[in-house]
Amino acid sequence: MSEQSRVWTAALVVIGDEILSGRTQDKNVAQLATWLNDQGIRLSEVRVVPDEQQRIADAVNALRSKHDYLFTTGGIGPTHDDITVDAIAAAFGVPVIVNPEARRILEDYYRDRPFNLTETRLRMARTPEGAELIANPSSGAPGVKIGNVYILAGVPHIAASMLEALSGKLKGGRPVVSVTVGARAAESEVAELLRETESAHPGVAIGSYPFFKDGMYGANFVVRSEDGELARSTGEDLASRLREAGYEPVDGGI
Amino acid sequence: MSEQSRVWTAALVVIGDEILSGRTQDKNVAQLATWLNDQGIRLSEVRVVPDEQQRIADAVNALRSKHDYLFTTGGIGPTHDDITVDAIAAAFGVPVIVNPEARRILEDYYRDRPFNLTETRLRMARTPEGAELIANPSSGAPGVKIGNVYILAGVPHIAASMLEALSGKLKGGRPVVSVTVGARAAESEVAELLRETESAHPGVAIGSYPFFKDGMYGANFVVRSEDGELARSTGEDLASRLREAGYEPVDGGI
Repeated sequence: MSEQSRVWTAALVVIGDEILSGRTQDKNVAQLATWLNDQGIRLSEVRVVPDEQQRIADAVNALRSKHDYLFTTGGIGPTHDDITVDAIAAAFGVPVIVNPEARRILEDYYRDRPFNLTETRLRMARTPEGAELIANPSSGAPGVKIGNVYILAGVPHIAASMLEALSGKLKGGRPVVSVTVGARAAESEVAELLRETESAHPGVAIGSYPFFKDGMYGANFVVRSEDGELARSTGEDLASRLREAGYEPVDGGI
Repeated sequence: MSEQSRVWTAALVVIGDEILSGRTQDKNVAQLATWLNDQGIRLSEVRVVPDEQQRIADAVNALRSKHDYLFTTGGIGPTHDDITVDAIAAAFGVPVIVNPEARRILEDYYRDRPFNLTETRLRMARTPEGAELIANPSSGAPGVKIGNVYILAGVPHIAASMLEALSGKLKGGRPVVSVTVGARAAESEVAELLRETESAHPGVAIGSYPFFKDGMYGANFVVRSEDGELARSTGEDLASRLREAGYEPVDGGI
C-alpha cells in the first residue's frame, strides 16, 4: 500500500483533573480532530486521564505503539500539577533534562517581563532526554516531540498555535471529505433508506445526527470518505433518495 | 473503610465517529462529571472510541472491572450506526433481546405519532439479555443498565434527563467540594506559593488554571477535597498567602 492510500491514525491523551471534574469544557478533542483531518490523519481514540504520573504514562504507552501519532494536551505549565513531561519521560524510560534550546527561548521571552526567567518558569524548559521542540508562537514555552508523541499545551488557543506550527509537516494520507445532507425527517423514518444508501456505495460511511429544532424533528446525514468524488456522488444519491421518499433534502445540512 | 469514606469512581466511554471527526463538540464529559460530583462519585477516566463494535466492547471490558460504575454515551438510536447495545452485549457475552418493557414504552410513545412503532424504531427496544431500563423522560427510548454499566443517549439533553432519573440512586461517598480563588497573577509567579499551600494541607489538591483576559494575566486556583471544611480553610489560607505576596485574591475566581 502506498503512503498516500493507507490510513494514518492518531490518538490523543487529554491530561487534566479540570476536565474530569467538569470544571473545564474540553475544546482540544474537536480542535485536534479538525486539524488532523486536514493533514490526512484520522483521530482514532481519545483518553482523558487525571494529573497522576503513572496514569499518564500508562495511557501514553498503551496508545503510542498502536497509532502513527500520539498527541497529549495539558500539564506543561510551571506549577506543581504540571507533570506531563515527567510522565512521558518515564513512559519512554529516559531522564528529564533542561533542554538548552528551550532555555534560550524562555530567556528571550521573559527578558523584558517582570521577574525574568525564574527557577519556576525554567520548569517549562524541561523535556525528556532526546526530545525536540514544537514552536509556540503565542506564549513562549514550547511544545515537545519525542518519538511519535507530540506534547501540546492544554489552553486551546496555545495548542492551536502549536498545531499551526506543525501544519503540513506530518506524513498523512488523503484528507477525509465530508458531505452533509439535512432533512426534516425523524431519523427512525429514514433509517432503512440510509442503510441502503451506505450499502450501495462501498467506501463511504454515513452518520446520522438527529436534532429537534423549532418544534420539528430533523437530522443531518454525514457522508464521509477519503475518496472525495465518491463522497459527493453518494451525497447526491442520498439527496435524491430522500426526495423520492417525500423529504426535501438540504445540501450542507440544516 | 466505610462506604461513606472510600472513594467511588466511574469511567465514561463516549461512542461516536462524530466526536472523533471534530464534527460534534462533546458535552457529555463535563455534564456527567458534574452530575457524578453531586453523587459523591469521581469521574476517573474517559475514552472516546469510534462506531466499531470491537473497539466499543474492548473499551467497556477494560474499564468496567476497574471502576465502580461505567457510563456510555451515544449509539443507541434507530439507525445503522447505532451499535452500542450489540457491542455491550458482546462485551458481557450475552445475546441481544427485544426487551418487553422497552417495547411497551415505545408502543405508548409512538401510538399517536406518524408511522407508530415501526420495525426500525423497535431497534431502540433491544437490550442485552438481563439488562434493566433507565427512564428517559424526554424522548421515549429508554437507557439501559447491565451490571455496573449505564448506557445513555448521546444527545446531551436526553443524556441529562436519564441522569436526572438516576439521581440519588447510585451508592457514592462524600461529594467533592471545590473552592476557587482567583488572582491577577501569572501562575509562574505563584507556583511555589501554591506548592507550599498544598503541602501544608494534606487531603487537598490544588489545581492552577491560567488565563489571559482584558490584557492581563491571571489564574484561578481550585482547592478540591472530600472534606468540605478542609477545602474552605485551605481556600482561606491560600487567599491570605496571595495577599501577603501582593496579589489581591478574588473569592469564587475571576
